[in-house]
Amino acid sequence: MREKLHTIIFEADTKAGKLFDVVLLWAILISIVVVMLESVVSISEAYNSEIKFIEWSFTILFTLEYIARIIAVKKPLKYIFSFYGVIDLLSILPSFIGIFVTGTHSLSVIRSIRLLRIFRIFKLARYVKAAQFLNQALIASKNKIIVFLFAVLSLVVVLGTLIYLIESPEAGFTSIPRSIYWAIVTLTTVGYGDITPQTVLGQTLASIIMIIGYAIIAVPTGIIGAEYAKTDINKISTQACPSCSKDGHDQNAVFCKYCGEKL
Amino acid sequence: MREKLHTIIFEADTKAGKLFDVVLLWAILISIVVVMLESVVSISEAYNSEIKFIEWSFTILFTLEYIARIIAVKKPLKYIFSFYGVIDLLSILPSFIGIFVTGTHSLSVIRSIRLLRIFRIFKLARYVKAAQFLNQALIASKNKIIVFLFAVLSLVVVLGTLIYLIESPEAGFTSIPRSIYWAIVTLTTVGYGDITPQTVLGQTLASIIMIIGYAIIAVPTGIIGAEYAKTDINKISTQACPSCSKDGHDQNAVFCKYCGEKL
Amino acid sequence: MREKLHTIIFEADTKAGKLFDVVLLWAILISIVVVMLESVVSISEAYNSEIKFIEWSFTILFTLEYIARIIAVKKPLKYIFSFYGVIDLLSILPSFIGIFVTGTHSLSVIRSIRLLRIFRIFKLARYVKAAQFLNQALIASKNKIIVFLFAVLSLVVVLGTLIYLIESPEAGFTSIPRSIYWAIVTLTTVGYGDITPQTVLGQTLASIIMIIGYAIIAVPTGIIGAEYAKTDINKISTQACPSCSKDGHDQNAVFCKYCGEKL
Amino acid sequence: MREKLHTIIFEADTKAGKLFDVVLLWAILISIVVVMLESVVSISEAYNSEIKFIEWSFTILFTLEYIARIIAVKKPLKYIFSFYGVIDLLSILPSFIGIFVTGTHSLSVIRSIRLLRIFRIFKLARYVKAAQFLNQALIASKNKIIVFLFAVLSLVVVLGTLIYLIESPEAGFTSIPRSIYWAIVTLTTVGYGDITPQTVLGQTLASIIMIIGYAIIAVPTGIIGAEYAKTDINKISTQACPSCSKDGHDQNAVFCKYCGEKL
Repeated sequence: MREKLHTIIFEADTKAGKLFDVVLLWAILISIVVVMLESVVSISEAYNSEIKFIEWSFTILFTLEYIARIIAVKKPLKYIFSFYGVIDLLSILPSFIGIFVTGTHSLSVIRSIRLLRIFRIFKLARYVKAAQFLNQALIASKNKIIVFLFAVLSLVVVLGTLIYLIESPEAGFTSIPRSIYWAIVTLTTVGYGDITPQTVLGQTLASIIMIIGYAIIAVPTGIIGAEYAKTDINKISTQACPSCSKDGHDQNAVFCKYCGEKL
Repeated sequence: MREKLHTIIFEADTKAGKLFDVVLLWAILISIVVVMLESVVSISEAYNSEIKFIEWSFTILFTLEYIARIIAVKKPLKYIFSFYGVIDLLSILPSFIGIFVTGTHSLSVIRSIRLLRIFRIFKLARYVKAAQFLNQALIASKNKIIVFLFAVLSLVVVLGTLIYLIESPEAGFTSIPRSIYWAIVTLTTVGYGDITPQTVLGQTLASIIMIIGYAIIAVPTGIIGAEYAKTDINKISTQACPSCSKDGHDQNAVFCKYCGEKL
Repeated sequence: MREKLHTIIFEADTKAGKLFDVVLLWAILISIVVVMLESVVSISEAYNSEIKFIEWSFTILFTLEYIARIIAVKKPLKYIFSFYGVIDLLSILPSFIGIFVTGTHSLSVIRSIRLLRIFRIFKLARYVKAAQFLNQALIASKNKIIVFLFAVLSLVVVLGTLIYLIESPEAGFTSIPRSIYWAIVTLTTVGYGDITPQTVLGQTLASIIMIIGYAIIAVPTGIIGAEYAKTDINKISTQACPSCSKDGHDQNAVFCKYCGEKL
Repeated sequence: MREKLHTIIFEADTKAGKLFDVVLLWAILISIVVVMLESVVSISEAYNSEIKFIEWSFTILFTLEYIARIIAVKKPLKYIFSFYGVIDLLSILPSFIGIFVTGTHSLSVIRSIRLLRIFRIFKLARYVKAAQFLNQALIASKNKIIVFLFAVLSLVVVLGTLIYLIESPEAGFTSIPRSIYWAIVTLTTVGYGDITPQTVLGQTLASIIMIIGYAIIAVPTGIIGAEYAKTDINKISTQACPSCSKDGHDQNAVFCKYCGEKL
């Protein structure tokens, strides 16, 4: 009985399992749309009762699903404190808290965390391979990305401090944190325009920051691109050594590089 | 007779076919410019009759072309319901509808139908053969791009909800959909500046979104770049040496670069 | 005599030639700075006579250089109508026209075209190799870049028309050309914010344009990147066939791929 | 004694050395945060004495560290005038100058240069390898990047002058330097929106600049990407087979993949 439930809820190999995932996918998407519409004042006022009804339907549905998941797994506690377990709970909790505690309207928005549950659905799809692919490339380039981000952050702190010295508070550079915020806005080429340099010196520094930002965007691209290409090449080789059964051989390999066995 | 028409209209190998294509190309481009100029109030008021005359000339020209295409093909229905058939019809229909539907109250509706003529521009796509190349790389990376877009959309929904919680409606974050719009504007580094965070916490979150956006732009670049390189490489290697049966030769190679055998 | 002049002015192998190029480089840069400063109202009013004096010194210097160049080359007409010949003339002409025709102040700004002359100086540097490199990659990917630009322009025309239909003129979308301008501002992730969508539908379309713009920036990067990598690899091979003296062989090539001769 | 001090302060192999680096890392980060908070008017007024106390604690700590570093090295002068030596001095000097000279509040902000000291800490980490990697790729592509930056700057000067001719000073294009600033803002896709073209011709030129900027961002990406990939490849191939003397083996390879010989 529990095993059957597990097959339906946690796996996607059977027909029932696939159906469950598709239904859940749509339930999540629709409930997210409802949460969004509720935040629009004109809609929430006009369709107050309808939204409440739909919201509670989904809350009950997700609560039942949550209970079913706890029943289905062998170690319930492990599931409850897992990443998806916590998200599952967070996506139903705000509605229940709303009954007992008033004035928790903003809290109810946390329900939009439900969207993260969608990533679980990915297991049913052919996208899981592509996702693993992306993941692998990102993990492989993790260290270099951290170094890059750290360099960017240091640059932004130093440049933000410089512009704070150059520009006056009247132009919007009222404090160093705010100036750093401006430096990030500029370096990442976002450029809101809510704070802009007014002096010639400030505009010169801004120009330098922009060109730096325009040039160094090539660095993460180069990093991920190279790792991606490597991941790609390694993947092409599908052979596994008949002796030591290790894989990851190059396409032109004739002998296993780990044990010397002929491939 | 029909075959001759087909050669002229649908093919570009003969002199007449080439001429037809060049004339059509210019007709499309000029008619697009006229549609654009018509939308500028000062121009449409000053040159009302001239624009109408040119517009009707092109409509008649494209109608004749449409009829000629129907005559030229063996299976007219198949052409009519094909992608280009629909676009060809859409590019002439609005002008004809404008005759029968009059009245000031529905003027704006007619106007917008007339603007559909802009789809004429898609007729140009027919001329581009090198586009296949780009297309191939995009199709090959379709799955990964979908996963990436889905991750970006999820990110944007979660970040948009967060900023909605942090910032007040006075700063422009009046609803979750609007906050998601802001998150997209920020993550894609567009940065209009029509909605900007005002609190320290909001600006911190904005900074994080910007840096994420600045870093993950490398992902689609890496994906398409890798697929593109593969597409490129596959195109080069078509021949295999008859002697040593190694491949990977350049397109202009006459002799095998490994054993010197003639390819 | 003429040959000696040619060696100094057009070449950079001798000591005198190098000195000439360095002096010219600084003369161009300083004259550009003067042109810029002249455009700043407060500076041009305060230092009117000084700027005029410096400007005329450079004009006479460049005129002498222009005459020297005409004398130095064997076919003066060919030089005069060449790319650099026209630029050399354009960089001195506005000053002379300014004597005879009054009210040509704005014309004098054309002198900033002098900056383009700097590219000639590149021949003296080790940068010529790197520049050729960039050039080669750009030429190789020319066709694909054109296709890409054409696709972007078509997209922008269609999206600009769509937003023109959706948004009202009050929001700034007064005509199709202006709406296309907005679409370019959005797609290229520039995002001035001078025109922004106000309706929910308009913001949705804007979001789609942004994400498209964010994703397709990968296409030119992929194209140039791939061509660049290819150029790079081809360049590594420095061998030339001893029999047919063709180059462009791969690093691992043992036999010439054109004539079969052993390398 | 001095050698022991050197081991602790300058190296990170021993337990004491690691501890010293970690403590210093936190001290730098916290002192930076304090410098930032001091620049926020509301905070600096409310917690004036607390901030002064913390600031002086760190100044004394860093002064002691500076003295210890001078004692620890064999050639103190060489350290004092080295890059990190100057930064170490600059990060404590402003506080001491503040005692003797009044009205140097803005000077004290220079203390945020302390952040650069963090890069010294990198030596303790596994990130040094990744940093070297990035550095290597950047150095290898230095010449090409300079050519690219020079081309961008020339483009920006010419385009800035053009827009200055087209647009009026009322739209914000008051001088050529300011117009060049606008051209940089546009080309790098930052797009503040503080200066925007108002005429049709100006918007057309702006559109061209945007599309150029959108397309040529691919160039630095291509350059760094290619160099990066090369650096990557070089890193992999370090061993050569003793039997067939072929190289290109992976780092984890034990046997030659071409002939099966033990590496």
